[in-house]
Amino acid sequence: MSLIVTGTIGIDTVYTPDGQHREGVLGGSAAYFSAAASLYGDVRLVAVVGEDFPQVHRDTLAKFPRVDASGLEVRAGSQTFRWGAKYMSNMDERETLFTDLGVLAEAPPTVPESFKDSQYLFLANSHPAVQYDLLQQLPNVKLSVADTMNLWIETAPDDLTKLLRSVDGLVLNFEEAEQYTGHRNPVTAGRHILELGPKFVVIKKGEHGAILVHREGLSALPAFPTETVVDPTGAGDTFAGGFMAYLAKTGDLSYDGIRRAMAHGTIVASYTIETFSLDRLADLKPEQLQSRYDEFSKMTNLG
Amino acid sequence: MSLIVTGTIGIDTVYTPDGQHREGVLGGSAAYFSAAASLYGDVRLVAVVGEDFPQVHRDTLAKFPRVDASGLEVRAGSQTFRWGAKYMSNMDERETLFTDLGVLAEAPPTVPESFKDSQYLFLANSHPAVQYDLLQQLPNVKLSVADTMNLWIETAPDDLTKLLRSVDGLVLNFEEAEQYTGHRNPVTAGRHILELGPKFVVIKKGEHGAILVHREGLSALPAFPTETVVDPTGAGDTFAGGFMAYLAKTGDLSYDGIRRAMAHGTIVASYTIETFSLDRLADLKPEQLQSRYDEFSKMTNLG
Repeated sequence: MSLIVTGTIGIDTVYTPDGQHREGVLGGSAAYFSAAASLYGDVRLVAVVGEDFPQVHRDTLAKFPRVDASGLEVRAGSQTFRWGAKYMSNMDERETLFTDLGVLAEAPPTVPESFKDSQYLFLANSHPAVQYDLLQQLPNVKLSVADTMNLWIETAPDDLTKLLRSVDGLVLNFEEAEQYTGHRNPVTAGRHILELGPKFVVIKKGEHGAILVHREGLSALPAFPTETVVDPTGAGDTFAGGFMAYLAKTGDLSYDGIRRAMAHGTIVASYTIETFSLDRLADLKPEQLQSRYDEFSKMTNLG
Repeated sequence: MSLIVTGTIGIDTVYTPDGQHREGVLGGSAAYFSAAASLYGDVRLVAVVGEDFPQVHRDTLAKFPRVDASGLEVRAGSQTFRWGAKYMSNMDERETLFTDLGVLAEAPPTVPESFKDSQYLFLANSHPAVQYDLLQQLPNVKLSVADTMNLWIETAPDDLTKLLRSVDGLVLNFEEAEQYTGHRNPVTAGRHILELGPKFVVIKKGEHGAILVHREGLSALPAFPTETVVDPTGAGDTFAGGFMAYLAKTGDLSYDGIRRAMAHGTIVASYTIETFSLDRLADLKPEQLQSRYDEFSKMTNLG
């Protein structure tokens, strides 16, 4: 089952409340997503970087052998997206220090011919018109899921609404769901979004877990309770990576399949935040993933 | 298995963001707790009101026939505790409009002789020295659990620490756990509290569910996802009521028993917030409780 992701590759600088920081580490939604997804199976990466993209970050990507990076375009004369942020003491809030769009302000990447038979598509956060255009290039998709962010809700709500008419699922943050729908209650917000087209919405609440609003029912899961929280960057993208890769692997698109996919996303994200960048995912064994999933399953099983 | 609760009975005035309000309805931690617990079995209520306590509120309590109100002292010359609050639009925050302690500023109620063989004790929120004194009056207790609040953490931290050396469990809000321990991470905060004595801590996060930090392991549960949220008052107290009553009914004090008790607390609380005061609980059928529990169990079962 061929999974493809389109999104950003970035060079991140991150400050955490415990006084640590990392400069120029590999980041971006598609990098986090594909690393996480590759723990479950093959994943095709479509993204664009500038000619400044360093070899060390290629080497990091190569630590995830099931990521097919042949759709990673290196654009001559352009600069890679760079982003810096500082997390506040509660880790829920962060201050953006800088955003240098670089190549993201130019034409989006093209989908290689060899990727056009992909069946599972994750449209990581970018302009909803770009997401819509990418969706049109993939005629064999049987499951399409998009992410979005406050910027597009503010600046391109009509493009977002158009996109939602065409995708099967939406993954977004709690605050964004309220911002887009005007409904503070996540169930109400989710149902509002379902009326616009998608079959399901996953509302992410960070350390408070996630809520699924599906045409066939509701669900909610906590985050995996952990003391080891170093850097929350990429938690949402790796949640989506585990979520989509599990669905692509099992082909189970039922309500129950999507519930279990949420749990896999939850577990991958709980590993992501244990270190900066992709460090923890790079040395994560499938047995560790399964073991924490089993632990989580026991915690929440009330039967 | 005899369950006893000591706490407050109040007369509440509540304003909700949708423009509704209720004046002078029955409230207080022990009223909410005992109503919820009585849906599972018998519960003994120890509290004190003033001579102004109206018949209509006695009639409301009488709608819960398994509440034994023979420990409800009516003190001549005193006034019942009165409390007013206004919820903000997000329902997470509220503004206290007034707090007239009345009889709560006087001597605590005494435990009737006929209640002294109680085996399950919930010390609802009051001064920790009063809670400690009540605990000493009940020599046959096999499970004692206390609640507390920010006021006592600020004004009587040493009394609270002394109480914690003697109780089996603590139930408190997320913000209070941070305030008391200085740890923002709920797992770290919970482990800190375990070092002071209790076998387990339940950290309540309102609409975001609850976290269990137990000597034998961790757990986390979401809140029951619902659109019907009228008045959050009493959610925490009825959570505790369902939690304790389930433990008293089953006698299962294992880690798994406590996890399931948390789920029962979650479900009772989800009904409580559907109306003002005890209105919803007064007409709740055991089948409805079981049915929503089963629904919740399906939502969170990942097996």
